[in-house]
Parts: sequence; C-alpha cells; structure tokens
Amino acid sequence: MKLLNDVIANIEKIDYALAKETQRRLDSLTKPHGSLGRLEELAKQVVEITKVKNPTLAHKVIFTMASDHGVVEEAVSAFPKEVTPQMVYNFLNGGAGINVLARHAGARVVVVDVGVACDLSPSPDLIIKKVGYGTKNMAKGPAMTREEAIKSIEVGIEVFEEEFGSKKGIDITGTGDMGIGNTTASSAITAVITGASIEEVTGRGTGIDDKALSHKIEVIKKAIALNSPDPEGPIDVLSKIGGFEIGALAGVIIASSSRRIPVVIDGFISGAAALIAYKVEPKVKDYMIASHCSVERGHRVILEFLGLKPILDLNLRLGEGTGSTLAMMIVDAGVKILNEMATFENAGVSKKKR
Amino acid sequence: MKLLNDVIANIEKIDYALAKETQRRLDSLTKPHGSLGRLEELAKQVVEITKVKNPTLAHKVIFTMASDHGVVEEAVSAFPKEVTPQMVYNFLNGGAGINVLARHAGARVVVVDVGVACDLSPSPDLIIKKVGYGTKNMAKGPAMTREEAIKSIEVGIEVFEEEFGSKKGIDITGTGDMGIGNTTASSAITAVITGASIEEVTGRGTGIDDKALSHKIEVIKKAIALNSPDPEGPIDVLSKIGGFEIGALAGVIIASSSRRIPVVIDGFISGAAALIAYKVEPKVKDYMIASHCSVERGHRVILEFLGLKPILDLNLRLGEGTGSTLAMMIVDAGVKILNEMATFENAGVSKKKR
Repeated sequence: MKLLNDVIANIEKIDYALAKETQRRLDSLTKPHGSLGRLEELAKQVVEITKVKNPTLAHKVIFTMASDHGVVEEAVSAFPKEVTPQMVYNFLNGGAGINVLARHAGARVVVVDVGVACDLSPSPDLIIKKVGYGTKNMAKGPAMTREEAIKSIEVGIEVFEEEFGSKKGIDITGTGDMGIGNTTASSAITAVITGASIEEVTGRGTGIDDKALSHKIEVIKKAIALNSPDPEGPIDVLSKIGGFEIGALAGVIIASSSRRIPVVIDGFISGAAALIAYKVEPKVKDYMIASHCSVERGHRVILEFLGLKPILDLNLRLGEGTGSTLAMMIVDAGVKILNEMATFENAGVSKKKR
Repeated sequence: MKLLNDVIANIEKIDYALAKETQRRLDSLTKPHGSLGRLEELAKQVVEITKVKNPTLAHKVIFTMASDHGVVEEAVSAFPKEVTPQMVYNFLNGGAGINVLARHAGARVVVVDVGVACDLSPSPDLIIKKVGYGTKNMAKGPAMTREEAIKSIEVGIEVFEEEFGSKKGIDITGTGDMGIGNTTASSAITAVITGASIEEVTGRGTGIDDKALSHKIEVIKKAIALNSPDPEGPIDVLSKIGGFEIGALAGVIIASSSRRIPVVIDGFISGAAALIAYKVEPKVKDYMIASHCSVERGHRVILEFLGLKPILDLNLRLGEGTGSTLAMMIVDAGVKILNEMATFENAGVSKKKR
C-alpha cells in the first residue's frame, strides 16, 4: 500500500495554465481557427498533461495485462480459459491483433502475466508478475483478498515505472487486456461503481448467445449480492468482483498520471480499470484519453460516468489495447499539427478578413 | 469527352465474389468473429475493390486540387481569394495541415493548379493544368462552359493516370481541395443533386458569421435560380454552379474507380465532387470510402445521399485532404489485420466452444 500511496501523492491537478497560449499558437497556424477540431483539442490536452509546449509522442507503449478469472467456472464465456495463455504466446510471437496494430502505429507492446492460471514459458518479452493463478470464482466468494487487490495495482505501477525508467521511456501510454472471463468482472465493477443496472452494462463479450447472456447476468447478480462490494471503496470492489489485470491496469493509469504521461484507455475492461483508478484518485481523470467506444454495451456507461469523449467509433470489441493503439495515431496527428504546421506569418498567408 | 467516356467504359461493377472467402479468412484469425468491426469491413472492401486477396496499401496518394471561384466577388468567404495561391505555396513548402498529416500517414501529396486565378511560380512539385483563371461568378451566369466542365474532369483523370503509371504507382487514392469560395459551389451542387434545401446544406465554410451566412444562402439561391442546372445532368451542374477543382476531383474518383483503386473521399468539397462523379457513373460509389463527417453541414446530406458511412468523426472542416489522410491510416490498419494476424490454427489457440 505504501507504493500506491506514494504514487498517488505525486499526482498533480492539471492547472490549464498553458491552454490559452496553446490555443493562440494553434490559431496562428495556416488553417481556419478550430478547423482541425478534435486534433486541436487532443494537442492541447497533451500539452496540458505533459506541461511541455511542443511534446513529441515518439515512444508509444501499450501495456497488455493478462490474467485468468475463477468465474469462468460458471460458463460465462464463449471461449475456454486455455485461450488466455495461448493468446499470451500469440502476443509474444507477434501474431495477435495488438501486435499488428502496434507495428502499424509504431508502438511497443509490454506483455505482463499478472495472474494467468498456469506457469508460462519464460521469454525475454514476457514480464511475469503473478499475483495469483487466476482469481477465485466471485459467484462463490470474493475474487481475491484485499492484499491481492492492492498488489495487483502495485504490479501495474511497477511495470509502468520500469518501462518509464528504461532507455526509451514513455511519451504516451496505452492500456490493454487479455483474460477469458474479464467482461464478466468488468460488468460487475461497472454496475457497482456507476450505479447502472447489471442488464445495462452486460454484453456478449467474445460472442455468447442470448441464453448465455441471461445466465451471465444472473451470475453477476449473484456475485454482487453475495459479496456486497462498497461502491465508494475501489479496493473493496476490485477485491470482491475484479480481476488481477484490471487492478494492474488501474495501476498503470495511476502511475502514468503521476508521471504526467497521457494514458489512452482502450475498451471495456480498461474502462473498468479506469473506474477503479478514478475512485482511488479522481485527479487521474484529466490524464485519460478515451480511445474508442466499444460494442460491449457497458463501455458507453463508463465513458458517460467519467465524462470522456471517445476518439473513434469503429465497432471494436477485441481489447488487448487495439483501440488504444489506433487512437494513439490520431493523438499523435494532433501533436504533429501543433509542432509542424507553418504559421500565417511564416508562410505569408493572408488572415481572415473579419 | 472521349477520354472521359473511355475511362467510364472501364469501370466494372463490383461482383463481391471474394467477400465470402475474405470473411472466412478474417474469421480464422485469432480474435472473436467480427471483433475488429469496421477494420474488418474495410479490409473486405479493399479486397473486393482491388480483386487482390492480400492487398497492400504502401503507396498512398492524396490529390489536392486548387482553383479559384468567381463567386467570391459576392463576399461569401471569410478569407480573401489571395489565400488560394498562398496556400498552394504552403503545400509546396510542406507547411500546411495536409503536409503534416501526409508525412504522419506515409502518404504523398500531389498538388495541382486546375484554375488558380493567377500564374503560380513553377515548381517540380506543382502540376499546372489550368482550365481557366478561376471560374466566373455563378451569381451572374454560368461558372464555366460545358467544355471547361468536361476538361476539368479530364484534368483529374490525366493527373491520376500520370501518377498511377509512375514508378511508385497508387495503392489507395485520397481526394483533397483548396479554393477560397468552394464551399459556396459545393453547397449549390449538393442542393441541386440531392434535392435538399439550400439552408440545409450551407455552412460557415472557413468561418463566416450569421449575417454572412444568410448572405451566402441568398447568393446560392440566386445562382441556382439564374442558371437552372439540371439535377440529372452532372456536367450541366458542374458547369453552371461548380468549380474546376470539383470537376478535377470527380475525374480522380472516376479514374481511380476505373483502375480498381479504392478512393477515400475527404470532406464537403470532395463530397460535392463525389456527387458529380456518381451522377456521371453510379458504379463509382462502390469504390468510394468516406473518410470522415465534416462540421460543414451539407456533408452529412451528401453521405446520406450516397449511402456512405464515414470512418471518423473528429469535427474537421479544413479540407485539403486532411480527413482522407487520417482515414487512410485506419483503412491500412484493416488491411494489415487481414494480412498479418495469425490464425487460430497457426497460433495454436482454441476456438469458440459453441
């Protein structure tokens, strides 16, 4: 808990002192005022977050956190739990969606085993920081202990700090997840923290049918009723109905905010982690950039609760950090506009008449 | 007219024979079926357009067509007409929004003077194919002759063909425009072709106030009443109330379709060009990809009329090809997913249970 508390203490409130000056600079560029819309807003946000007048986003890092969920015993997922470790190997071999998109966007992927339910073969590209071998079945009791919940967040902080302190460093963070069963945990977290109904925040995950969806809703209802998580206690929520990767992603969000590095939030599972991080320390909200709006229905509820406006709406629902990676290309475009465009003065272009 | 007719004769109807097989390949990749949403649709569309099973989009080309408009005499724009040539020089110096975003996306920009109202200094990077020195004032008579309208379309075809036949070639086309006054022409075209009211399709362009907007609407009403363009005659519409760059972009769209190269349509002005191209030859529609939805209100009307679903919605209204360039990065992401992801079989990942 000391590590977490220390990092939280370093998170500053954004003071927006640079906002006016940045707007003036954007308005001096050879384009009608405001005509690059969201790109200009994103450039301003990155300046405000980083306190750097002309930030560059050369080092893009996606943290893809993998873990298993005891609740898969309840048949809530369309895929068997063996897929979690199989997909970790796929990440390491560069064949998953996140690998393809990270190569496309010039991002690097940091793959972390926070709690896969088996021992994975070591690899130089795999960080193993297991909090446990999967969570326990939340339909029968708490998913993890309070200590494990804190530890999972601290794993995220540690992994972020190692990468941040590395030679390349991090200019922009992206979140990503892998864990069969993790939409079930994310729906439970979303319902408890936002106060929305379970039906409203529960979707088909990897692709279950109507019958399985009704069953999934019943399982979540049972888990919440049994564990009575405290909506105002994020560690309580995480421990009772969460997941190790969700805790670790909350840790990444908290650590990235403490370093004034913008953090691009992926889809629904990352959104649940954002809810936990926000409840731990509300100041993190201003460091978050919402990448996209997922097909998984609870995601919209999270975005509304946090007041985040997604950059993309492409009917994605894969996770892994795929949405974050695509959105980073747009954030980078905004920053490059600020850094690279000519001004009216330099280019000798006449200004608006009135 | 012969060139135009020859090119039109080469435009094939897309037969979607590869659609099923492409879907099967997408479904064999290590992700839940359909979970990459729009990326998968875009990949399929590029396969169908190109008839290539694993297309690559290495050579991205934006055609930015510049021209002037006689209707600026009527005080319809917030910027003076000198800005058209000034911005062309800005394009050539690499300082405009389109240059920054094209570098970011790995695209090259082809700048064409189709009818700027003054003689521009020669540059190896500037293609000069003037149809005239700006159009005539459409509020006082036709913007151009019928011969000039055809010539402007043929300029677009010629420029596309030169680039297509060059060493690098073109894998994906983007449209872009520059021309003070060209939202006025585009609103007029949109109203006539779609049948929407002039109020519904007329916006603030580069940033005019309420009073100037009312005036702009009156000018467009006057131009349409005076010239009576035939909604079913695209050459008639283009000649009476169009612009040389709009004609040239219609030519690019037609030529790109004839070569089975996907063409990413930028914002409102490119949308007006898409309407002309569609009315010349409806088959071009299936080769178009809508990049984004512009703030300029008439753009939504165009997208609905053509049945195109924009990829991005980022409150852009700059033109130049900026929206096309951003959207190309997303289209390329989709194609790379199809080409580079591992299959369930190759990666040893278990499939869905039911």
